[in-house]
Amino acid sequence: MSEPALRLSILGLGTVASGVVRILTGPDSPVSRRAGRTFDIRHVAVRDASKSRDVEIPADRITTDWNAAVSDPEVDVVLELMGGTTTAREAVLAAIAAGKHVVTANKALLAEHGDEVFAVAREAGVCVAYEAAVAGGIPIIATMGCSMTGNRVVSIEAILNGTSNFILTGMLGEQRQYEDVLAEAQDLGYAEADPAMDVDGTDAAQKLILLTQLALGKKVELNEFPRQGIDTLELADMLYAEELGYRVKLLGVTRVVGDQLEMHVEPTLLRLERAIAQTDGALNIVELHGDAVGPLVLSGAGAGQMPTASAVVADLVEVAIGRAQHTFPQLNLWQDDSGLSVMPADQIQRRYFLRFNVEDKPRVIADVADILGRNEISLASIIQHEAPEVEDAENGGTPIVPLVIMTHRTTEGRIRAAESALAELSTVRAPHIRMPVAD
Amino acid sequence: MSEPALRLSILGLGTVASGVVRILTGPDSPVSRRAGRTFDIRHVAVRDASKSRDVEIPADRITTDWNAAVSDPEVDVVLELMGGTTTAREAVLAAIAAGKHVVTANKALLAEHGDEVFAVAREAGVCVAYEAAVAGGIPIIATMGCSMTGNRVVSIEAILNGTSNFILTGMLGEQRQYEDVLAEAQDLGYAEADPAMDVDGTDAAQKLILLTQLALGKKVELNEFPRQGIDTLELADMLYAEELGYRVKLLGVTRVVGDQLEMHVEPTLLRLERAIAQTDGALNIVELHGDAVGPLVLSGAGAGQMPTASAVVADLVEVAIGRAQHTFPQLNLWQDDSGLSVMPADQIQRRYFLRFNVEDKPRVIADVADILGRNEISLASIIQHEAPEVEDAENGGTPIVPLVIMTHRTTEGRIRAAESALAELSTVRAPHIRMPVAD
Repeated sequence: MSEPALRLSILGLGTVASGVVRILTGPDSPVSRRAGRTFDIRHVAVRDASKSRDVEIPADRITTDWNAAVSDPEVDVVLELMGGTTTAREAVLAAIAAGKHVVTANKALLAEHGDEVFAVAREAGVCVAYEAAVAGGIPIIATMGCSMTGNRVVSIEAILNGTSNFILTGMLGEQRQYEDVLAEAQDLGYAEADPAMDVDGTDAAQKLILLTQLALGKKVELNEFPRQGIDTLELADMLYAEELGYRVKLLGVTRVVGDQLEMHVEPTLLRLERAIAQTDGALNIVELHGDAVGPLVLSGAGAGQMPTASAVVADLVEVAIGRAQHTFPQLNLWQDDSGLSVMPADQIQRRYFLRFNVEDKPRVIADVADILGRNEISLASIIQHEAPEVEDAENGGTPIVPLVIMTHRTTEGRIRAAESALAELSTVRAPHIRMPVAD
Repeated sequence: MSEPALRLSILGLGTVASGVVRILTGPDSPVSRRAGRTFDIRHVAVRDASKSRDVEIPADRITTDWNAAVSDPEVDVVLELMGGTTTAREAVLAAIAAGKHVVTANKALLAEHGDEVFAVAREAGVCVAYEAAVAGGIPIIATMGCSMTGNRVVSIEAILNGTSNFILTGMLGEQRQYEDVLAEAQDLGYAEADPAMDVDGTDAAQKLILLTQLALGKKVELNEFPRQGIDTLELADMLYAEELGYRVKLLGVTRVVGDQLEMHVEPTLLRLERAIAQTDGALNIVELHGDAVGPLVLSGAGAGQMPTASAVVADLVEVAIGRAQHTFPQLNLWQDDSGLSVMPADQIQRRYFLRFNVEDKPRVIADVADILGRNEISLASIIQHEAPEVEDAENGGTPIVPLVIMTHRTTEGRIRAAESALAELSTVRAPHIRMPVAD
């Protein structure tokens, strides 16, 4: 190995950072041989230097001063593994300003501040590698950035949040309600103490923003497309979907339709036989469609210590052997030169799964069908089971039953208009459940 | 674009080469923007210059002299898309000697002459990129070579021959025999006029050799591991497998077991719920297992004009922006420094599916079970249906019935010994079908 050691500062020493240290310092690690050089961990910046760790770092390499760690002139690369968007942003900008390459797993930082981060990095002539920020161990950034260069990307459909998928799999497999499985996921460490970003769709939407930017050169903001999490989902609706031959997944979709970009993250019905429908537990999956390559599916661990560390190390080796320095300037990052505009939500076209609770009385189905018909929505299938689900005492004992409808293809605008009209019917009760159906 | 155009010689103008020309010269092609430079097709070497083509190449760029095309000092990269192992080898070696980078889709050339080709390329300081040689449009070379650098690869399981998979899917889906579906596949252009290399497992084995070399730094020869094609497979056995909950696929496996390398390409039973079992038609799939990343699955078009062209163009862009020149010297190609030895076939351990045709007489099952037992093979399940399959006139009218056995885990050596003993039984008739079962 003629190359000098690559000198690192690691910011944060949580789960993923410990995994990275483990890979780099493991006995007989293959990484140095593959990179053609060794790795020298100069600094590890932590909040609490006294905390015990499950990896061994010499005490003189541990610091609570991230600024010193990123500005040391003897450091070549900064690994930002602290998370968050405040200190992480400052630290990444400081690292870039000090001329360091950056490897990060922080999708929130890039989804929110990517334009700033990538612009200053380009100016400074350093690279920001972020394979670990999207879909954990799945090499989706490399695939999109390097392997799809001969393609125009037509669509991306993906499960990008492992926590949500773990909960959905648990709900269906064990016939349990959302709150129940969430509590278990938190006990097992699959869900954060504050799981809001995972279960409300924000995390998946941030990752989809990063993939869309890379694939299509289009900068999209979080508030520009429909986003719904799994936190309002009921087991009953998952079971109705199964009855119709579909599985509910938290699906992120980006699709080019003419000069518009259809984009959404929502619990979505997928035909049971599709690979995405069968992706269970904490796995992630990305199904790309390129005009030359056709469909291309990648699946694997979307989170977890070692899979995410695997992605961080892959980026680190890219920097070590000089590839990342060629890749980064070519990537279509935050350039917004696509000519695409985000499709307004009302214009999105697809089929829908609807569930209403209705009074089990004559004419109710006719009234519902009439309102849908007046909004030019035609019905593909209806489920109404005989057994009443709820006795409604206030209603003089009229049973309330769920009415499940699968529509033919229509627009989100028509569905919303129909829902408003349906809400006026005295025989239709909340909640109104609406989930799109993937083609 | 400050970089000068990248000047190309393309050897061959068959299906894939036409696809490459189409991507590079298409209206508003995104490739030049991504590569930061344009592509100048200087020469296209063909056998018959008068043949009509479905892509437009100026007449003065067409030549029948591949030697002139590779030795032109004004050319930077040679795309070897002629196929075969004789002229292709000469042309690739000549291109390397002339200091050109090479992009090839030729797995047979690399599986047979990879040691020579990569050695001279390394010496000459040029790179040989071959994403298109394995699994068509699936970026498996990039994934293995760049994204798995933090991992020790534990196993590879893959469907790598689209023709075989197309035929198997047709046999099962339409309940047809092998010869029948093969003839249709040839009519449709999915199978070559001479399909031998596809259906006898050679093509899949060559691709597995390339993946194994890249993943593990171990050079394996075609004759060092068991290889069986689909050309002797009967529909009946696929149906028995389904009855047991398994699907038959032509599966290539490489697995590290201690310091040995288990490797084989054979029709194999896979549990129906596995993604590999559900990979149909001309699709390919590769399931990797890395010690850090865990299981990682990639699937997509394993052949076809545009998917394969997509992989060739990805390699070309890698060369154009200078990444390939960093990648190639680091790849663990034909170095044979793994310390692994190929496991002798007799020691390979797994479960087996066996089918014998036996006389429907008392004691036959007992005799078969006795021989298996004496070879320490225990049975997991047996299928013998009531209906006789064949009346054997020579045998005084004793019906011949198929006896299907699924064993518990045993070695290939024991199975072969038992088969020899079974062949001695007068009540057991040919053929003896033996297929391994994947875990």
